Amino acid sequence: MISFESDYNNGAHPKVLQHLIDTNSEQSASYGYDRWSQQAKEKIRLASQLNSNADIFFLTGGTQANATVIDALLPSYAAAIATTTAHINVHESGAIEATGHKVITLPSHQGRMHADELHAYLNAFFNDPTWEHMAVPGLVYVTFPTEMGTIYTAEELEDIHIVCKHYQLPLFIDGARMGYGLMAEGCDITLPWLAAHCEAFYIGGTKVGALCGEAVVFPKGAPRGFFTMVKRHGALLAKSRIAGVQFDALFTDNLYMDISRHAVNMAMRMRKLFANAGLTIKDSPTNQQFVLLNQQQQQALSKHVLFEPWEPVDNVYTLYRFVTSWATTDDDLQVLANAINTL
Amino acid sequence: MISFESDYNNGAHPKVLQHLIDTNSEQSASYGYDRWSQQAKEKIRLASQLNSNADIFFLTGGTQANATVIDALLPSYAAAIATTTAHINVHESGAIEATGHKVITLPSHQGRMHADELHAYLNAFFNDPTWEHMAVPGLVYVTFPTEMGTIYTAEELEDIHIVCKHYQLPLFIDGARMGYGLMAEGCDITLPWLAAHCEAFYIGGTKVGALCGEAVVFPKGAPRGFFTMVKRHGALLAKSRIAGVQFDALFTDNLYMDISRHAVNMAMRMRKLFANAGLTIKDSPTNQQFVLLNQQQQQALSKHVLFEPWEPVDNVYTLYRFVTSWATTDDDLQVLANAINTL
Amino acid sequence: MISFESDYNNGAHPKVLQHLIDTNSEQSASYGYDRWSQQAKEKIRLASQLNSNADIFFLTGGTQANATVIDALLPSYAAAIATTTAHINVHESGAIEATGHKVITLPSHQGRMHADELHAYLNAFFNDPTWEHMAVPGLVYVTFPTEMGTIYTAEELEDIHIVCKHYQLPLFIDGARMGYGLMAEGCDITLPWLAAHCEAFYIGGTKVGALCGEAVVFPKGAPRGFFTMVKRHGALLAKSRIAGVQFDALFTDNLYMDISRHAVNMAMRMRKLFANAGLTIKDSPTNQQFVLLNQQQQQALSKHVLFEPWEPVDNVYTLYRFVTSWATTDDDLQVLANAINTL
Amino acid sequence: MISFESDYNNGAHPKVLQHLIDTNSEQSASYGYDRWSQQAKEKIRLASQLNSNADIFFLTGGTQANATVIDALLPSYAAAIATTTAHINVHESGAIEATGHKVITLPSHQGRMHADELHAYLNAFFNDPTWEHMAVPGLVYVTFPTEMGTIYTAEELEDIHIVCKHYQLPLFIDGARMGYGLMAEGCDITLPWLAAHCEAFYIGGTKVGALCGEAVVFPKGAPRGFFTMVKRHGALLAKSRIAGVQFDALFTDNLYMDISRHAVNMAMRMRKLFANAGLTIKDSPTNQQFVLLNQQQQQALSKHVLFEPWEPVDNVYTLYRFVTSWATTDDDLQVLANAINTL
Repeated sequence: MISFESDYNNGAHPKVLQHLIDTNSEQSASYGYDRWSQQAKEKIRLASQLNSNADIFFLTGGTQANATVIDALLPSYAAAIATTTAHINVHESGAIEATGHKVITLPSHQGRMHADELHAYLNAFFNDPTWEHMAVPGLVYVTFPTEMGTIYTAEELEDIHIVCKHYQLPLFIDGARMGYGLMAEGCDITLPWLAAHCEAFYIGGTKVGALCGEAVVFPKGAPRGFFTMVKRHGALLAKSRIAGVQFDALFTDNLYMDISRHAVNMAMRMRKLFANAGLTIKDSPTNQQFVLLNQQQQQALSKHVLFEPWEPVDNVYTLYRFVTSWATTDDDLQVLANAINTL
Repeated sequence: MISFESDYNNGAHPKVLQHLIDTNSEQSASYGYDRWSQQAKEKIRLASQLNSNADIFFLTGGTQANATVIDALLPSYAAAIATTTAHINVHESGAIEATGHKVITLPSHQGRMHADELHAYLNAFFNDPTWEHMAVPGLVYVTFPTEMGTIYTAEELEDIHIVCKHYQLPLFIDGARMGYGLMAEGCDITLPWLAAHCEAFYIGGTKVGALCGEAVVFPKGAPRGFFTMVKRHGALLAKSRIAGVQFDALFTDNLYMDISRHAVNMAMRMRKLFANAGLTIKDSPTNQQFVLLNQQQQQALSKHVLFEPWEPVDNVYTLYRFVTSWATTDDDLQVLANAINTL
Repeated sequence: MISFESDYNNGAHPKVLQHLIDTNSEQSASYGYDRWSQQAKEKIRLASQLNSNADIFFLTGGTQANATVIDALLPSYAAAIATTTAHINVHESGAIEATGHKVITLPSHQGRMHADELHAYLNAFFNDPTWEHMAVPGLVYVTFPTEMGTIYTAEELEDIHIVCKHYQLPLFIDGARMGYGLMAEGCDITLPWLAAHCEAFYIGGTKVGALCGEAVVFPKGAPRGFFTMVKRHGALLAKSRIAGVQFDALFTDNLYMDISRHAVNMAMRMRKLFANAGLTIKDSPTNQQFVLLNQQQQQALSKHVLFEPWEPVDNVYTLYRFVTSWATTDDDLQVLANAINTL
Repeated sequence: MISFESDYNNGAHPKVLQHLIDTNSEQSASYGYDRWSQQAKEKIRLASQLNSNADIFFLTGGTQANATVIDALLPSYAAAIATTTAHINVHESGAIEATGHKVITLPSHQGRMHADELHAYLNAFFNDPTWEHMAVPGLVYVTFPTEMGTIYTAEELEDIHIVCKHYQLPLFIDGARMGYGLMAEGCDITLPWLAAHCEAFYIGGTKVGALCGEAVVFPKGAPRGFFTMVKRHGALLAKSRIAGVQFDALFTDNLYMDISRHAVNMAMRMRKLFANAGLTIKDSPTNQQFVLLNQQQQQALSKHVLFEPWEPVDNVYTLYRFVTSWATTDDDLQVLANAINTL
């Protein structure tokens, strides 16, 4: 059955796979020093208009990237600020706390943090005479796009960054699905812009056409000892080539953005199918779509396609998630359209 | 100037101090094996009607006791559930997270957790198909009395314990100010009742007449390796006698309860002073009183007595805390009364 | 230039790669529930003669597997016992300590732990009246084969396991290069034997023909919450299929053992080349060979092949490592032979 | 029975106790801001000739001070270097590792680290091409006096400090028994000299006349966020006055040094008693004496005085520890002398 369950339910994009095939018989250095990792870094450097201070590392997954970067950026006594719906707060099994750091939560506006709420929180915190008795804010974490499929405007993100700079807090952007945000209709953020407006971010590969791999970027340079931190977190690949080769392919001929645009286009067509059927859909310009279904509707669709429950809403409705990827085809959407027609 | 800032702004209760003086020239074993620690444990055992499985340890402070007990009760992957206003969530500098554990928060009702909200949370959690991807609830933490000075009824606390038992989660009660709760008017909870309705609790000494010291009690026995955990947390006193002697005094001739009752009585008289002056006071039957004051009122009172801001409420009012202790005298209250009369 | 630097300087074994290609276009469940992971587990179960209590998990790398398993097996206050040369003690950037656990070291006999020294240590430890003031031994960690290329006999390993059982300590066997041990000449240990003589082990894929992946096996069942521990360590692959598919291939038609036997055979031929040239080689029946070279010899060989320094020995000699893998060919050995002939 | 078991088997020195009595009825600020803490800091500042950059904090115990300071000085990926016999390596239940940091060990020369071995280790470490794969040395920890009762000369300690500075590693000196070192015959180190030759040290109170308390000194200023680190480690006393008052007494009229000198004198007389009886004593100029006794001798002495086994030496002899303190009297030594005479 066709699955819209996630963007990690497929193999690699054919071009990524092909590059793995083409390079398989070559020998290489390891632990990040293979030639493809070097090439891929150069290509990411170019695509992000990074200067020579910038550092790039390849890790295997999102939770790992989040825990490693946050642990490296924070002194022991400090905490990460995130929204209540942030991946690090909800779906990482306490991986941040496992490194000794609290996650301080601010309200989530469909996944987004508001700069003014961040400012108000920090202002109140540092004016509290007992602030030294609390976990001290040490960085700000946002996701782009968010867990709810929404994106920030450049202005919104810049406002957050301005607050961060005012309080000398690094801004870290989790880009596990970054491409889908950059390619969303109405997005006024580019990779170079992003690199110029934060202290760390990563370009997700696992959910954007690779088998695994996230490219962690520090536009102004990595924190001291970061290589050792990666190793210490069990995040250093011996055969680092597997990340290098894949990102080399993803950043050749704009593949990363093409994959992302394709998935977003498919998601927008999916939205129309839901909307035309009179279903309630959450606002999302990216590859994750969230639809309210009652039990009967859910069961009817489940006969034809696979998808995941997101969260219960009330006694009647539950929110369900439908996700597109590089692999989503016209035929897949037709199957979904037919399924919707049975409602 | 008279200080109502806290219940740790005085020395030891005279009887506690006297016992330290009387025993000072005797030699003793160390690390918990001194004779006064043994005696004090026996007295606490009796006062709490503990059976022979119970274990008691003396630590020096509240944050330390919380971190050590929670770290010992939780497997690595598990989290503590607490209210948003819980001391472990707000005022311990991330000490729980420093041991690798997330603090999951539920709403605070004037400091109290509601059993039905706990139940709803746990029910939803374990019905979420992705629960294994999240920090798994591993214990429930409540404070008695709460940070807001309120107390639980026996029924409310029993309801929480029933939910805990249903989900096989230990219930841990932070009793940094336990005496003030037990001696509060209307309190239907006793030390033996408490010991029978949780898996761990502590009897606070620092804030109830001692120089330092908290008696951690595990009514059904301590988790394996707890002694080593205490040492590992830097919480093992070489001269353990200082805690032993003090608790020996506190649990002789009902001193602990007498100290607590005195402070509560003083606090109730303080409430009347505020109420008679038409000031808004939060509901609290214990030794901490919370009063709304505008800037003018605050400044007027500050000329005569010391007290602490608790939290801003709106543009006009701030909540202030006034605390009594074993050392609060009639004269102190008269000074406060005179100060209030100037408003 | 031909590289003998490591067994992770090549891509995947062609059959492993082919299986990735063949399955790439299929959709799958994620986070360990894909069909190939299930298949691969069944094949490992069969090859190891595991019973139905056994649990298997796929992680991406060795350091990650070590940290996750050790953190899951140990209570907070406990330590892992290992040799001084153990990978977890030397080359994991403190990944075990990062989880809060001490590594207690015993002497290394060419990488091996001696059962009698383990016994003597534990006997002394638990007879020390201050043992509760120390990090308490909580498990025993050995590598098979060891970091020095040596292996244990069944009797040696069983003796260690007997000591472990006497002290109720789980035995955990790091098998990052397990195949090369099992296929070594004179090895009297099999996969089923190993599974019956420890509480946890892993079958390394990264260094034995896969692109990445280690199969962690708990013959008597995983510690509670292990799935969440994997996630918490950033070790849970969203596209778990990449490990599943590779292990599915490795455990089809005995491929894992064939790869291992090939590399061992090549290493034995390499030994002869060194021996015939009068060079001093360390005793190792597996795919890693350690050779003493002076500077002149090192420079001469370096003109023809790549290899790594292991450790300085004296003013004249340094120990160098030469490693074979599935990819080592007759031609590669001929290049090495020619290079040796120039000495 | 007279106990020579430890220097924490007595109450407080009478002058320390008297100051607690004299100040008990005064109100004070808390969490370090009480007047006695401020006074005590000034006196320590003077006694140590600290400049205005220096920071001083009072913690309750040695293990706690070690874990808090080391955790604050090290970045996450770094390790502490210590001797194999160091307190942090042996007798702190893994408290350092609990903060995520490895303890790297160098040989112990009767408790002392040798500067040349430290230098050789660091030189080898940073020349190892794989150093980034290992826990990176981040500070050097020594004890003064050592766990074996020995002391460093100024030259020895300065040599260690020179190596530290060369590698930009802070030097941290555990002074749990500092006074006994400073007052040892032949000691050419003073408090001001010490403060000028390290980045952090503490002046132990618990073992030198106080009920509890260690004064942590950062001569060049505390690491950022140290107050919060203290709280986070459960090491912040609400009634901080108990440490402040005690150190105020200890640093009035040279009491700290007088106590120390007394105990050292008593220990030297004790040495003579052992020596005259032909017993083998370890070299120690401080208040801890280590004596070899066979079982018969141990049993004979045990009828008259209490003392502790230190470590087994061979089949016949065990090393025992005898400790003096402020409380050791002429009469106590006479009892010991009589006991020795029965051998």
